[in-house]
Amino acid sequence: MQLSLVQREEFLARLTTNLNKQWECILSENSLLKRMQSQPISKELYAQYMIETFHYTKHNARNQALVGVVASNISGGYQKFCMEHAAEETGHEYMALHDLKAIGIDIATVEQSTPLPETETLIAYLYYISATGNPVQRLGYSFWAESVYGYISPILTKLRSDLKLIPSQMTFFIAHSDIDADHAEEVKKVMLQNCRTPEDWAAVERVMTTSLNLTVQMLTAIDCFHS
Amino acid sequence: MQLSLVQREEFLARLTTNLNKQWECILSENSLLKRMQSQPISKELYAQYMIETFHYTKHNARNQALVGVVASNISGGYQKFCMEHAAEETGHEYMALHDLKAIGIDIATVEQSTPLPETETLIAYLYYISATGNPVQRLGYSFWAESVYGYISPILTKLRSDLKLIPSQMTFFIAHSDIDADHAEEVKKVMLQNCRTPEDWAAVERVMTTSLNLTVQMLTAIDCFHS
Amino acid sequence: MQLSLVQREEFLARLTTNLNKQWECILSENSLLKRMQSQPISKELYAQYMIETFHYTKHNARNQALVGVVASNISGGYQKFCMEHAAEETGHEYMALHDLKAIGIDIATVEQSTPLPETETLIAYLYYISATGNPVQRLGYSFWAESVYGYISPILTKLRSDLKLIPSQMTFFIAHSDIDADHAEEVKKVMLQNCRTPEDWAAVERVMTTSLNLTVQMLTAIDCFHS
Amino acid sequence: MQLSLVQREEFLARLTTNLNKQWECILSENSLLKRMQSQPISKELYAQYMIETFHYTKHNARNQALVGVVASNISGGYQKFCMEHAAEETGHEYMALHDLKAIGIDIATVEQSTPLPETETLIAYLYYISATGNPVQRLGYSFWAESVYGYISPILTKLRSDLKLIPSQMTFFIAHSDIDADHAEEVKKVMLQNCRTPEDWAAVERVMTTSLNLTVQMLTAIDCFHS
Repeated sequence: MQLSLVQREEFLARLTTNLNKQWECILSENSLLKRMQSQPISKELYAQYMIETFHYTKHNARNQALVGVVASNISGGYQKFCMEHAAEETGHEYMALHDLKAIGIDIATVEQSTPLPETETLIAYLYYISATGNPVQRLGYSFWAESVYGYISPILTKLRSDLKLIPSQMTFFIAHSDIDADHAEEVKKVMLQNCRTPEDWAAVERVMTTSLNLTVQMLTAIDCFHS
Repeated sequence: MQLSLVQREEFLARLTTNLNKQWECILSENSLLKRMQSQPISKELYAQYMIETFHYTKHNARNQALVGVVASNISGGYQKFCMEHAAEETGHEYMALHDLKAIGIDIATVEQSTPLPETETLIAYLYYISATGNPVQRLGYSFWAESVYGYISPILTKLRSDLKLIPSQMTFFIAHSDIDADHAEEVKKVMLQNCRTPEDWAAVERVMTTSLNLTVQMLTAIDCFHS
Repeated sequence: MQLSLVQREEFLARLTTNLNKQWECILSENSLLKRMQSQPISKELYAQYMIETFHYTKHNARNQALVGVVASNISGGYQKFCMEHAAEETGHEYMALHDLKAIGIDIATVEQSTPLPETETLIAYLYYISATGNPVQRLGYSFWAESVYGYISPILTKLRSDLKLIPSQMTFFIAHSDIDADHAEEVKKVMLQNCRTPEDWAAVERVMTTSLNLTVQMLTAIDCFHS
Repeated sequence: MQLSLVQREEFLARLTTNLNKQWECILSENSLLKRMQSQPISKELYAQYMIETFHYTKHNARNQALVGVVASNISGGYQKFCMEHAAEETGHEYMALHDLKAIGIDIATVEQSTPLPETETLIAYLYYISATGNPVQRLGYSFWAESVYGYISPILTKLRSDLKLIPSQMTFFIAHSDIDADHAEEVKKVMLQNCRTPEDWAAVERVMTTSLNLTVQMLTAIDCFHS
């Protein structure tokens, strides 16, 4: 069953509603995110977070491109999006490294470190859903990741103030919040064009929910590991 | 640094101790496993568990063989183990299907079902650690999976009694508890031969701990989904 | 041993000399290319060539991106080049289809056709050298492919005249000769930056020579198949 | 269209006939094989052949297992065959090394050598047809490779006599001629069970013809390289 554009927009609206609900739940229940909103954020916690960010970000361009490499029967437009998006995401891990260096962390140690198991699980999941299953499903990850700043900007503002960071010390977050506003719109457009059946939207939602949950599990692990 | 055989046996003993601790913790804290030990186990719960088992078991021979396909610089003996072990694991998902049919579940529906996200995450993790990283690390999964019956046999006995199952209705568990006793010994031998450095043992332990945790998360999800 | 920029430029000059020699040899010895220079080119031969071009071009963006997906220890700049170049190459197979349609060939039949074994061998080789070995080696393919028009433009001019084609019927060749002039310069720049050792240049030359030979074998097979 | 067993046996008979024809053509036209039949075979030529054999044999267990790893919708029986066959083929490259050592070749040099481009092309092709396309098609390679001794045994006998080799110096050929007699029968059985449509048989024949041709191209390259 091919959905009309109006129907696809309804699916997109429902996806947005469900993402809002998931975030509401996360922001009110995750102990780390709650504490970050109410208590001073330590440099150590931020550093640990950026280390894990370095680890998974290294794989994002790769798993994004992988969709375009392995999927057959995808539109030329969607394949091009995968490759272009991968090109844009390439090297973003260096921003994480830059910001770690800016707060005095030894970069060489970070580069040789092993990610937390929860970070590795997130990485594994993103490769798996990029290499197998419905080729549009990775859009579910992009959908929440590119719009994350709408949800976490109060925390980022507080982080910046707590740690007295200036913009040039937060390139990862600042660059992403700029880039991702455009990306978020593009991701929606690509979804409306390429998610043509209810099954496509179900696959996208499944990956959205699961990859956000795995990211929250990574956050929780950072908190445990750090404290 | 190459470890002596005596040192390797110490690492193996420590691994066993740590696995015992992890299981103790799981059996005393996981609400599903606790309830299964104290209250009657329902057919529905067992069926849901076997459905997820069907899903991840389908991938076990594949990710096991993948180690032998992609790893370079592995010994001929270890590569042969990967291929032989994969051959032995091939088709075990049909035992899960058989047992589901034996308790009246419609097989066609099971085959077309989507695994729970937690099951998919476990599958993704096993492919990832098989395709990348230290080639011996998947042994950490085999290590606990092949010795699982020592830890869960009281639950299996209770399950069999609660659901009044006869052996021919439990081929998956019975076949595995027989096969796996041999496998467990073989896995230990392969580890002693091929885990030559402290880094090898650390990689094995990491995968042991993480894959068992992901399996417990799958169990918890089965419980939530089912109730 | 890290080469100086001057040394790299010497390697590049030698690569160019060797490519010139290989082409000289091909143009004077390959019976198809010789006949195309001396006798009228038939529509059937051109069509068969464009069909095989359709088949292998479908894979070029994919195997280019694959380098960026699988290679570790590559510079951020080279990884970005792989992804961007893949994005640019995406969908070029549709130009081949367009041109086939423009000369009256049934597109649906082309899309369902099986490539010649020689075309499949070329495709297989490009995936293999993209997924394994020295990560810079695929540049050896780009190096000759992006500069191909300098060698074959007399044949293309004759083709256009023999078949009385107008530019809008030859989008694949015309678009590529425009795009590729820029690409050729970029490929050289990327090679000078990323081919740092004699081993890197040897790997590049090996892939250059082999992939051009496999392409010539494809041409020869087209000729046999067609006549 | 599902073929009956009788029809499958007809396809198998035709495959055998076509393989006979291909070999007849190779044995009467390939200059290397002709010379090996009529002139003394040099140790250098044999060594070069065994070096290339070492290189491609290293990949045979891997690409065989890959079929069982990536293919979905294959029968449990065929998947098990892939894994078991991979286990049996594992480590055969060490026989090639053994035989090279037995005639005084330095093994370390061989292990670090680069295969000829033609050998690499064969390896690339076998991975490609194992990872993509019709999952039964790799049987076309096994079909001729396991029955090769019927075609080349006169050459092997002459080789043994020319170089005055004793059986313990020819483990690769002797072990394979023993093992492969059984394998050849098993491959036929597996084909009759799993090649169910004319398309399956066409894919098998295509891979048979192409992989044998690529092997002959490797032979020719050994001859050129050596002389």
